[in-house]
Amino acid sequence: MSIRDTVFNARSKWMEGTGPECDVVISSRVRLARNISEYPFPHFMSEEQAEQVANAVRLAVSQKELTGVIGQLEFVDLSELTQTERQILMEKHLVSLQHIESIVHRAVVIAPDESISIMVNEEDHLRIQCLLPGLQMEETWGLADSIDDLLEQTLSYSFCEKRGYLTSCPTNVGTGLRASVMLHLPGLVMTKQVVKIVHAISQLGLAVRGYYGEGTEAYGNLFQVSNQVTMGQNEEEIIKNLQDVTKQVVSRERSTREGLLKDNRLFLENKVYRAYGTMKFARMMNSREALQLISDIRMGVEMGILEGLNYDKINELIILTRPAFLVKRAGRDLSEQERDSFRAEIIRQTLPDTKTN
Amino acid sequence: MSIRDTVFNARSKWMEGTGPECDVVISSRVRLARNISEYPFPHFMSEEQAEQVANAVRLAVSQKELTGVIGQLEFVDLSELTQTERQILMEKHLVSLQHIESIVHRAVVIAPDESISIMVNEEDHLRIQCLLPGLQMEETWGLADSIDDLLEQTLSYSFCEKRGYLTSCPTNVGTGLRASVMLHLPGLVMTKQVVKIVHAISQLGLAVRGYYGEGTEAYGNLFQVSNQVTMGQNEEEIIKNLQDVTKQVVSRERSTREGLLKDNRLFLENKVYRAYGTMKFARMMNSREALQLISDIRMGVEMGILEGLNYDKINELIILTRPAFLVKRAGRDLSEQERDSFRAEIIRQTLPDTKTN
Repeated sequence: MSIRDTVFNARSKWMEGTGPECDVVISSRVRLARNISEYPFPHFMSEEQAEQVANAVRLAVSQKELTGVIGQLEFVDLSELTQTERQILMEKHLVSLQHIESIVHRAVVIAPDESISIMVNEEDHLRIQCLLPGLQMEETWGLADSIDDLLEQTLSYSFCEKRGYLTSCPTNVGTGLRASVMLHLPGLVMTKQVVKIVHAISQLGLAVRGYYGEGTEAYGNLFQVSNQVTMGQNEEEIIKNLQDVTKQVVSRERSTREGLLKDNRLFLENKVYRAYGTMKFARMMNSREALQLISDIRMGVEMGILEGLNYDKINELIILTRPAFLVKRAGRDLSEQERDSFRAEIIRQTLPDTKTN
Repeated sequence: MSIRDTVFNARSKWMEGTGPECDVVISSRVRLARNISEYPFPHFMSEEQAEQVANAVRLAVSQKELTGVIGQLEFVDLSELTQTERQILMEKHLVSLQHIESIVHRAVVIAPDESISIMVNEEDHLRIQCLLPGLQMEETWGLADSIDDLLEQTLSYSFCEKRGYLTSCPTNVGTGLRASVMLHLPGLVMTKQVVKIVHAISQLGLAVRGYYGEGTEAYGNLFQVSNQVTMGQNEEEIIKNLQDVTKQVVSRERSTREGLLKDNRLFLENKVYRAYGTMKFARMMNSREALQLISDIRMGVEMGILEGLNYDKINELIILTRPAFLVKRAGRDLSEQERDSFRAEIIRQTLPDTKTN
């Protein structure tokens, strides 16, 4: 496996869909912001310093102490990738949009199964990210923590006894930790409970936003819940708080689904099967509609309405239908209409037949 | 074949879809309003007189001179039918809504293939109707004319040398003839030319209205074009005028479709296949949506996009999905939700598989 496989492959570790509570929680993510004490923060670095940081990280991730525990990681300079490939890394949430806006001495370190990615010279020198399927906050945190410890054996982090880890942006100072879960909440959306839930969650020091979509819209009923503050709580508290709140949301989503199944089974079946029929036959589909229909089908699987489909295929479809991935697959630039047409084709080919009709 | 078959069978002669210009013209219809001179018009008849009219028609349609030419016709008193069965006759346009509003000495005479139906004691004593597939105005008129002549051998029509045939409503006086065609005009609707065409047709003494739907809306892109005036033109002129105008509309619809296929093939394919996918998988569907999707699929067949489908199946679906027909099929009254569910089921079962995917 190499970065080339990564950007060609629509499957990632988090897509396996075998994690705990995978009927509601798609993935768990932990991100640590770290900086190397010898260098200014990225915004103030010279190009030469940026290059030195990148080289230091390259060395650090290849040390035996780390690879012996974590396995081989691949260090890739962003300038080695095409623009489309960089966009795919972003569509897979392995790097941020901000990270690929420049390629000067920026890099990404990726594990073959994509459960680990480290952005180099983004807003901070290092952004260590771990991503696992389902609700696995402690496991994900554990993985990030061990990588962090292993890197610290060769890198000297900017750290202050009083404030904790120092970061470019004050909102990350302290633990430098951002923990988040991606949730699929069709039941809460359909019953219009989402606004209330979002409000309640905000009261608990967590932020909720649509995973895809603009503003408050959440295309495909996908929501990201993450911690707001990085100071005043230690890592374990942040992780535990997110895990606990998520469990409550999971429970609410499940009971809502049960109620819907009991009272509106036909309505749900209609929604799910229409989505399936449209995906199996449409000749053009934009990215937003694809996310919505994928959500409807996922709900069908989650609620036992659709048979013969697995989470991994559905998760794969989310990545497969993203714009840059389609361009990569097509091997050339695509107009908007060509993209919508190719997206529909990929969906028809990928979506397995269902048993029931 | 008997009336029982008629109301159970979703197929009729006009549905064969083998008539001329059947890619645009679904059917041709002629209706003759006639009254028997010995009796007052229906609105002014006593019940006894109505019964006598019904009996006179019953005798007239069973005379050998008529059956020898036209074949056996079945005379059915509306009171012998259930309300659902009467509604089915209306859904098949064999009788009018007005006709089934009362069942007192009202009757209908039907040919086994449903190409002929005679309403007895509707607004006039007789309303002779003939319906053939495709554009066959002259043939349809010829059939109605011969039935009219054969009935006149035993019935004495109300006729005035100066005004022609006398009818209850002055708008029918003269020829008593209403000739019409049912057209499928998805191309003209999609390109928003329909309003202009409707206006132009009105200037030629013809009326256009949606075949199904309320007001100016034409569900399923189905339009009926008919003559407005029954006086001042003889039958042949009325028929020829309608035939000529229809041919012009057919030609316009076809050139529009060619243009769409040339410039927007993908858009059309998308529309057609989405309709197909929805019909093959939906679990609930209301009557209006069914008409629209049936229209999209018919367009797919007409334009050579969908293979493995024939007009007869599509025409059958129009009748199959009407409310009363569904109730008859189900064998019991249905709530709105049950009807939408049963409609979706019937559609899934009836719609054949298509070759292309």
